[in-house]
Amino acid sequence: MNYSEESLKMHEMYSGKIEVISKVKIESREDLSKAYTPGVAEPCRRIHENEENVYKYTSKGNIVAVVTDGTAVLGLGDIGPMAGLPVMEGKAILFKEFANVDAFPICLATKDVDEIVRTVKLIAPGFGGINLEDIGAPRCFEIEERLKKELDIPVFHDDQHGTAIIVLAGIINALKVVNKRIEDVKVVVNGAGAAGTAIAKLLLSSGVRNLIACDKPGILYRKMEGLDNAKKELAELTNPENIQGTLADALVGADIFIGVSAPGIVTQDMVRSMSEDSILFAMANPTPEIMPDEAKAAGAKVIGTGRSDFPNQVNNVLAFPGIFRGALDVRATEINEEMKLAAANAIASMIKDQDLNENNIIPNALDKTVAANIAEAIKKAAIRTGVARIIM
Amino acid sequence: MNYSEESLKMHEMYSGKIEVISKVKIESREDLSKAYTPGVAEPCRRIHENEENVYKYTSKGNIVAVVTDGTAVLGLGDIGPMAGLPVMEGKAILFKEFANVDAFPICLATKDVDEIVRTVKLIAPGFGGINLEDIGAPRCFEIEERLKKELDIPVFHDDQHGTAIIVLAGIINALKVVNKRIEDVKVVVNGAGAAGTAIAKLLLSSGVRNLIACDKPGILYRKMEGLDNAKKELAELTNPENIQGTLADALVGADIFIGVSAPGIVTQDMVRSMSEDSILFAMANPTPEIMPDEAKAAGAKVIGTGRSDFPNQVNNVLAFPGIFRGALDVRATEINEEMKLAAANAIASMIKDQDLNENNIIPNALDKTVAANIAEAIKKAAIRTGVARIIM
Repeated sequence: MNYSEESLKMHEMYSGKIEVISKVKIESREDLSKAYTPGVAEPCRRIHENEENVYKYTSKGNIVAVVTDGTAVLGLGDIGPMAGLPVMEGKAILFKEFANVDAFPICLATKDVDEIVRTVKLIAPGFGGINLEDIGAPRCFEIEERLKKELDIPVFHDDQHGTAIIVLAGIINALKVVNKRIEDVKVVVNGAGAAGTAIAKLLLSSGVRNLIACDKPGILYRKMEGLDNAKKELAELTNPENIQGTLADALVGADIFIGVSAPGIVTQDMVRSMSEDSILFAMANPTPEIMPDEAKAAGAKVIGTGRSDFPNQVNNVLAFPGIFRGALDVRATEINEEMKLAAANAIASMIKDQDLNENNIIPNALDKTVAANIAEAIKKAAIRTGVARIIM
Repeated sequence: MNYSEESLKMHEMYSGKIEVISKVKIESREDLSKAYTPGVAEPCRRIHENEENVYKYTSKGNIVAVVTDGTAVLGLGDIGPMAGLPVMEGKAILFKEFANVDAFPICLATKDVDEIVRTVKLIAPGFGGINLEDIGAPRCFEIEERLKKELDIPVFHDDQHGTAIIVLAGIINALKVVNKRIEDVKVVVNGAGAAGTAIAKLLLSSGVRNLIACDKPGILYRKMEGLDNAKKELAELTNPENIQGTLADALVGADIFIGVSAPGIVTQDMVRSMSEDSILFAMANPTPEIMPDEAKAAGAKVIGTGRSDFPNQVNNVLAFPGIFRGALDVRATEINEEMKLAAANAIASMIKDQDLNENNIIPNALDKTVAANIAEAIKKAAIRTGVARIIM
């Protein structure tokens, strides 16, 4: 199937993908008087008396803003807020289809960090959560960090954490397949943008000790020249022996390669230089860092990609719907590290031991039972870490 | 029925009134690949190539933002953006139910005019129109004026123009009942806030020559002290003989009273001082400026109120859905004076001559055929005045 053509046709046929509908019927004067004036004054008054009532009488508690500035849309780059809208609508419908979360695209006509933060804060009263999307690094880090501090609803940059959570879930299961422990493995993450940085940090949170991050100029190390603050921080957190060199140097003896970088940059020789039973997540889209059959021929044991036509697809749709479902259900004030780890473990646990093998480490992206499992795990982790405002 | 209690129950049962749903199914890998990655990249590319394609491939062209700062919500005043949310959701569902316009509430956590203007501009890429709602005067005037200048999508403050359009529709029909011409009548508008100001201006646009605006301190006149800019402008446009005095003074010999003011402030003596066959629109909510039976006993011929339990209800729901339907359908860049007049005439024309009488000058608020008629009139007026970007 030619997805580009089919997608164009579908988008044109429906004029976009989202619709805002009413949960209640308006057919009689009574309906109108309850849903609108004069009756509606009463829920307004109750919220004015006690702001928490907004969760009782409005849709806020189930609505997430999908916010972008259109600067890092898919692999297309900075195409602007309007051109990013089809992706944001796509995200919105996945929220609804997979976890019954209502989500609405907010495409911002600015790239200025202060303005983005300010605008999201100003529109926040109507939303139960903020999903940041396709905002370029390093601006995305500051925007997320500031919004997390300044808002009391969950703020989550999916390109970072959604990806990191699925990768971690895949790693947890891949390590079972190759029978290695997360504390013992050497991991190389190539591509120190939004996703790569979040992946590195989440792997460190989950027990990885030896992690090397690479970017275009090679291995990140302390005192490296020309790094922005985000990459400097990453260089501080990783590369315990502070080695220097190329991606090829980094991969010698590595157990795991995680690529969020560019097509074809990993060679079979590089894979041969890795440890036995190596694990490769080659997630460059649409062409991976190395094709699965080549990696396999060079000795790799478990291979994941971003594609649905190979085994072990790393697809964010597995994570974000359930994460927000859980966070909204307990009215979490944030989505913290423990909640992300819980989500990754919940995803990993969807593959039962008897079904686990090198070609089946990640659940199918269309498995709608995953979201409910993540939501449960997220709720428990939110309650455990004290960020849940209601206990179900 | 106790609308307050029933309304609370309804809002709590559904947790608010709006829902964001998908127009397309996501059940197979193919669905996912068309609605989301990788297929969705193609509509993104097409919009990046030509911004007008955003109307072809996204929902923008059918989505209106219902924007408030929560400063003038119903009769409740400045209750804040969260407490205004039930009204905004109510508005959103009426847009959908009456005219299949998708509308989404945007509740802003600021009262600052510059910030409101800036925020609405920044979120505008995802919307086909902006409906301002429940923003206090005089800030609402500046906000609307600036947004109209700076955006190329329609911006419409419903509390002003929606109300003015229905009032004008009612006046057109009431004048037929009493057999007077709009050029000849003396009109008194009491209450120079958002609605009163817009009503006065629209009546002037439609041929009224002798119009007196009153506010708490009495008749507005040129050189009156203590007026804000909006009221100064109104004093310039109205009161041709530049008289001074009270509401009672203004009403002597008047043909029409239009109240958007306070309960019970019009006495029977005042009505008796008006011209024969007087018309009163007493729209203070929930208690009118004078009760219809009292006005009638004092000699008034046609009486309208904001209430559904009396004849001739002035209810904005008759106007805004059809107005935006028409504006969106021809992708109008604005909603101009001609379009408003066309909408008022379309509403008035819904009452056929044989059905027209003093108790039947305005269509029923639940008559869903009104919106389609308004939309047609709006489209024609937009095309005629050169603000339509597509000709249907």
